[in-house]
Amino acid sequence: MANFGFSQLAVVAPFEAHWREARSAVGAPELLLEAKETGTLAQAVAGCTLILGTGTRTYRRPEQRVVRLPDLAPLVKQELARGGRVGLIFGPEKHGLTREDLSLCHVLVEIPTDARQPSMNLGQAVAVCLYELAVRAFGTKIDELPEPAADGSSQSARSADLELLAGVVEEAMVAADYSPRAMREANRHDLRLMLRRLAPSARDTRRILGLFRRILWRMKRVSDAKTQGTATK
Amino acid sequence: MANFGFSQLAVVAPFEAHWREARSAVGAPELLLEAKETGTLAQAVAGCTLILGTGTRTYRRPEQRVVRLPDLAPLVKQELARGGRVGLIFGPEKHGLTREDLSLCHVLVEIPTDARQPSMNLGQAVAVCLYELAVRAFGTKIDELPEPAADGSSQSARSADLELLAGVVEEAMVAADYSPRAMREANRHDLRLMLRRLAPSARDTRRILGLFRRILWRMKRVSDAKTQGTATK
Repeated sequence: MANFGFSQLAVVAPFEAHWREARSAVGAPELLLEAKETGTLAQAVAGCTLILGTGTRTYRRPEQRVVRLPDLAPLVKQELARGGRVGLIFGPEKHGLTREDLSLCHVLVEIPTDARQPSMNLGQAVAVCLYELAVRAFGTKIDELPEPAADGSSQSARSADLELLAGVVEEAMVAADYSPRAMREANRHDLRLMLRRLAPSARDTRRILGLFRRILWRMKRVSDAKTQGTATK
Repeated sequence: MANFGFSQLAVVAPFEAHWREARSAVGAPELLLEAKETGTLAQAVAGCTLILGTGTRTYRRPEQRVVRLPDLAPLVKQELARGGRVGLIFGPEKHGLTREDLSLCHVLVEIPTDARQPSMNLGQAVAVCLYELAVRAFGTKIDELPEPAADGSSQSARSADLELLAGVVEEAMVAADYSPRAMREANRHDLRLMLRRLAPSARDTRRILGLFRRILWRMKRVSDAKTQGTATK
């Protein structure tokens, strides 16, 4: 709940020992400390105007309107827009919501699961439902992404820089005898196409250029040394 | 995973006692029994062509492209349509994925969470990600996607091939004295990040590999010749 910005929890007839333990744990989140505790589900949802029961496709014959979780957001947005209060209810892990629980619900929300393994862990079912609502019904609150690094690392390379790089890579190809002479023109063309496909950023282009210049310098130096060496034979 | 129809799990360097216990539990699901166990993350994702690291907004300055989970489906659909294999990776609960883990990723998927409580339970993070993909990337609409190019030119490179390429480029860096010894580790990391950013196709990866192998061979040959030449002086 805290991950997705929800804060109002109500717990119905909890097993007292576990509930006390959970609330008194070190670092128990505020929403647990402030949770409402009621004896019946009817009391817990008394102030809600739209009550959504949750489940997976284990309900064979649902008695109320069924909405798939991925289609739920518009309904919730509409209700909130008209000043309503929406309650989402989850049953105990073992058997889910009872038929009586569901009789308090306006809608049964179905989490679409694989037919071979429809039954979900409670904590995961809650996470999936709240994620869906946070992202698609409430949007803005958790929406801001960190700004991209302002160091120009994502700036695209100028065409001229790609050409410069292509020239140096070609020199390295020649120095390494990579292309048979008859293939040089075709390889030259393919190299240009490939650089555009890869679309390196300005910074990556400089780095690759630096590496190829270094390689060229090295090949040249050892090549000179070889000539020199051969000359002394 | 079973709830949302995913079946191929790989576990990297698990804590043996816990792993054995999980697999030998009565009713352990098939996907756990058939899970692949590897020593390194690189081995686990070797066959993948698009690797997605997951996290919440605890990463202050991400080094790779960040895509919010609600925007992820089109990317995954596109990759599958061109015959690729997508790997979704999750770090240990305590600290999430390391910087080195992330250097194998093409994209960092951010689960949008509340700024006051960004850190998620691992099982819930997995559930939320798989729910999103099951519903929005694997629906029936996947049939309407464009046919992949028949010549394989747009096929993504497998992670193992990118690692192979990284290894050969590193050898060339060393042979050309590109990196001062103190910078080697940092350059090694940057090279991995860059290859994932460039995301070369399978074919381009083979070509670049071919060029670097040729360059290496050449540097080695002239280097040997130099040694020989020097010896005759």
